[in-house]
Amino acid sequence: MARVSQEHLDARRRQIIDGAIRCFTRNGFHATSMQDVLREVGLSAGAVYRYFSGKEELIGAIVGEAFGTIRGAFEDAAKQDPPPLPDKLLAHVLDTVLNGRVGGGSIEFPRLVLQVWAETLRNEGLATPLREGFADMRVAWGKLVDAYREAGLMPDDVDADAVARTMMALAQGFIAQQALFGDAKVEQLEAGLRALMRMEVPKVS
Amino acid sequence: MARVSQEHLDARRRQIIDGAIRCFTRNGFHATSMQDVLREVGLSAGAVYRYFSGKEELIGAIVGEAFGTIRGAFEDAAKQDPPPLPDKLLAHVLDTVLNGRVGGGSIEFPRLVLQVWAETLRNEGLATPLREGFADMRVAWGKLVDAYREAGLMPDDVDADAVARTMMALAQGFIAQQALFGDAKVEQLEAGLRALMRMEVPKVS
Repeated sequence: MARVSQEHLDARRRQIIDGAIRCFTRNGFHATSMQDVLREVGLSAGAVYRYFSGKEELIGAIVGEAFGTIRGAFEDAAKQDPPPLPDKLLAHVLDTVLNGRVGGGSIEFPRLVLQVWAETLRNEGLATPLREGFADMRVAWGKLVDAYREAGLMPDDVDADAVARTMMALAQGFIAQQALFGDAKVEQLEAGLRALMRMEVPKVS
Repeated sequence: MARVSQEHLDARRRQIIDGAIRCFTRNGFHATSMQDVLREVGLSAGAVYRYFSGKEELIGAIVGEAFGTIRGAFEDAAKQDPPPLPDKLLAHVLDTVLNGRVGGGSIEFPRLVLQVWAETLRNEGLATPLREGFADMRVAWGKLVDAYREAGLMPDDVDADAVARTMMALAQGFIAQQALFGDAKVEQLEAGLRALMRMEVPKVS
């Protein structure tokens, strides 16, 4: 039997993930069977199950890939000195995720995210990768808050985790708006956050 | 036949909505049948169908009620002069929704919201009340941005709709976090937004 190259294995894995994403976004996670995925990618059960034991593992891989992309965008940003401000960084991260490989383009990905969220409520196997990814993101944003503090942009006593959660809520809410209403633009989120950051806040309130 | 009082009709309607919320949050919108709702509220089909033609109308009523609660919280806030700052207002609105009547308490409601979102992607009948509610909220936040401008807290050229969408993204993202991870606190969102509002933003960046 000929030895299969790593490139071939990676390309096959990619092909299966992309097909699964198309199925899940089209019909929902619940209504998609592994048979549907096999048909979509045009591979045999043997070929697909070699990579993924089932729908949960597929979704786990998709979630892991999405968080990996976000992490990369953060690591790029963290190299800058001073660090990019929250509005710029959020726009950069969202652009990277929405226009990147994951989810096959900006329209499909937010819809997939909403389906994963809903499914997670009833499926502990899906909840784990999501929980881990969220914890990772909190750490990444937390480090950026440290960098803002060091650069004198935020006071020392700021609650880094609260800021991290708030920035993630912005990203999550934006994805929900894009999935539900289709007309949300990253530039608007950036402008809105910028306006809030520039607000004249009375010292005592 | 005895005349039925309005109080009785309202109480019956309330009873059905509350039962439907319990069913939807427990098993998901998709897996809940009208039979399940009848069993949950202990009423006959005739009694229930007098109020609601089916699941879609029930969800429509729940969504409408949720947006009504949010609108009320906004109207209260808009009466204040100067208007409450975004962090305080967001916390007030979320507290009202999460601890209010809708959804029967803070744990259930966010999970219901996520299920409605996911279902909306495949069901145009559900999309309409959500779309209308979202448009209403944009108008309400837009008016507050006007009030911030008048009070000198935001510059005249601020993009009011961008700020409105950003505030709503915060609320939506917070609800997603609470549904998915269960540990999100309104106080943290308030503190995080406050920290962003107080950030020292370089004038040119």
